[in-house]
Amino acid sequence: MDLTLDGDVVRAGPRAREQFYDSRGYGRVRNGDLDLAPVEAAHLLYRGDIECVDGMDFRTLLTSRAVSEVAFLVYKDLRDRGFYLSPAREGWVENPEGADFVVYPRGNGPWDDAVAYRIRVVGERDTVPAASLGDCVLAVVDEESEITYLATERPDVSGTSDGTVPATEGELLAERVLCWDPPSALYEQAFYGQLLDDAVQLSLVEAAYLAREGMLTVEGGAEAVVERGRDVEGDRFDRRLAVYSTLREAGVAPKTGFKFGADFRTYADVEDVDNLGHSELLVRVLPADHAFEPRDLALDVRLAHGVRKRMVFALTGANEEVHWLAVSRLTP
Amino acid sequence: MDLTLDGDVVRAGPRAREQFYDSRGYGRVRNGDLDLAPVEAAHLLYRGDIECVDGMDFRTLLTSRAVSEVAFLVYKDLRDRGFYLSPAREGWVENPEGADFVVYPRGNGPWDDAVAYRIRVVGERDTVPAASLGDCVLAVVDEESEITYLATERPDVSGTSDGTVPATEGELLAERVLCWDPPSALYEQAFYGQLLDDAVQLSLVEAAYLAREGMLTVEGGAEAVVERGRDVEGDRFDRRLAVYSTLREAGVAPKTGFKFGADFRTYADVEDVDNLGHSELLVRVLPADHAFEPRDLALDVRLAHGVRKRMVFALTGANEEVHWLAVSRLTP
Repeated sequence: MDLTLDGDVVRAGPRAREQFYDSRGYGRVRNGDLDLAPVEAAHLLYRGDIECVDGMDFRTLLTSRAVSEVAFLVYKDLRDRGFYLSPAREGWVENPEGADFVVYPRGNGPWDDAVAYRIRVVGERDTVPAASLGDCVLAVVDEESEITYLATERPDVSGTSDGTVPATEGELLAERVLCWDPPSALYEQAFYGQLLDDAVQLSLVEAAYLAREGMLTVEGGAEAVVERGRDVEGDRFDRRLAVYSTLREAGVAPKTGFKFGADFRTYADVEDVDNLGHSELLVRVLPADHAFEPRDLALDVRLAHGVRKRMVFALTGANEEVHWLAVSRLTP
Repeated sequence: MDLTLDGDVVRAGPRAREQFYDSRGYGRVRNGDLDLAPVEAAHLLYRGDIECVDGMDFRTLLTSRAVSEVAFLVYKDLRDRGFYLSPAREGWVENPEGADFVVYPRGNGPWDDAVAYRIRVVGERDTVPAASLGDCVLAVVDEESEITYLATERPDVSGTSDGTVPATEGELLAERVLCWDPPSALYEQAFYGQLLDDAVQLSLVEAAYLAREGMLTVEGGAEAVVERGRDVEGDRFDRRLAVYSTLREAGVAPKTGFKFGADFRTYADVEDVDNLGHSELLVRVLPADHAFEPRDLALDVRLAHGVRKRMVFALTGANEEVHWLAVSRLTP
């Protein structure tokens, strides 16, 4: 069987088309012949289905510039898992942008319309702009060539927790606000702050939100609390306040995520603190232009999985609009 | 009962000594009288055991500069848990440096010699130099005033895994080294790399170590691998290689910790990969002068706990000496 490398395509004839496309979903048909991406040809070489491409054996093709090692490892892994998949090239698949492979549901192939996953391949040392995620699965190849799949989505974040409480007075301390005589709803129903005997201690972000919404009076007003927040956290305070406010407006009660290394954990349906359910989300607040290190993503997602929560990133810029990005482990 | 604030000490008389020191371990005896730290006096005010200090009630003292809110919250929490504890002041306790409170075993007090914990209080926004840890418990007060206790130690890291293998040849690809015809011991006994059919894929750090130790020949030698490592990771590669080498020399087999967001997971007693136990440690490599954000610490420690591993930080400078620091959750 004669296969030749022509630029970034491996050309093969009608017999190869029958054998590899028609029955196993490799490549793309062109005038009855078969075009293969080099990574597909490398896989056929690896399996021993073909012997060489332009005189190159598996080892030579894999170590050539025509094939990316990490793409090959992911391609092979998905084939090993029983999937047919196509390189996401212009003209080969619909909407190739942002993906390296389009994976079909098991039993389907490139001749069907269904798509199971849009896969983007990255090495563990590549950075991944947050804004580019949301409709693909990251296949991260680590330094030891193991693959971690991370599904990304743009979730809706909303709930039924009511954050409205009667107004009260607070006293600004170094990094918290103490309400010495709070209405019981403050903590008991709306789940703001933390009890200290009869008083309620609010975090700066809680206090800033409540003061802005007219539910808390404090010397210097909301601005004094926000200023203090900026003093101790810098810009991050504004981003966290934007996310906190967006969550509260969406009917979700945010509490600190410190014990999980996150900004917030959230409760979608708080009626009172005595009947608190499990918190559903871990939220990490990031600038809108953030680029992830895959290892940091792996850490957050692994932790969230371990505590049965969904990992959600809140991306927000100076304009205070918040975009949600959920990332979860996936076993294809 | 007459209590007066004198600089950073609250002075009280012999009756206070009997009532608060002799029976409950507050303060320090001075000529039969009692000296209290302001945080102790605040706790006595909070409990209603005394009514005022120099005319100040609990609220006034707590919000004054004499008492740190976070220190008070930790003091109260430890008292609530049934401990007696002393402020770590020069002349009050032995070796006060690096601690805010010395906590006695339950049932003991300042008149005994035993110490249960040396506690250092930090707010979640404070940074903590790694070099200052190892013999104290961090009590991190988060923005919502909840406390997370993190015990720090300087562990011994060693094992019985033998990393010696017959020499083999490797081919340097972009971010890994492929051994096309490896001795079986490479993967099977010593647990280097990852199989790809009959070949073994080594990470750059594994390959650099093996090449330096004369167990791997590769074009350009160990230096070529190290150079590639620096190209893709910068200085971090040298630190990781120093830690990898130190672990191997100590009889511990390191593998990637990517799935846990760490640098390495380690196996202390590998005989062969078919009988691999649970990996014991998660190792994160950090510069010797690193200062932790408490939230990052909480994240690492929580994750390690969830996967039943010990979180160990490997601190190493340019001189390649490695200092180990273990951090774990503690419930006092």
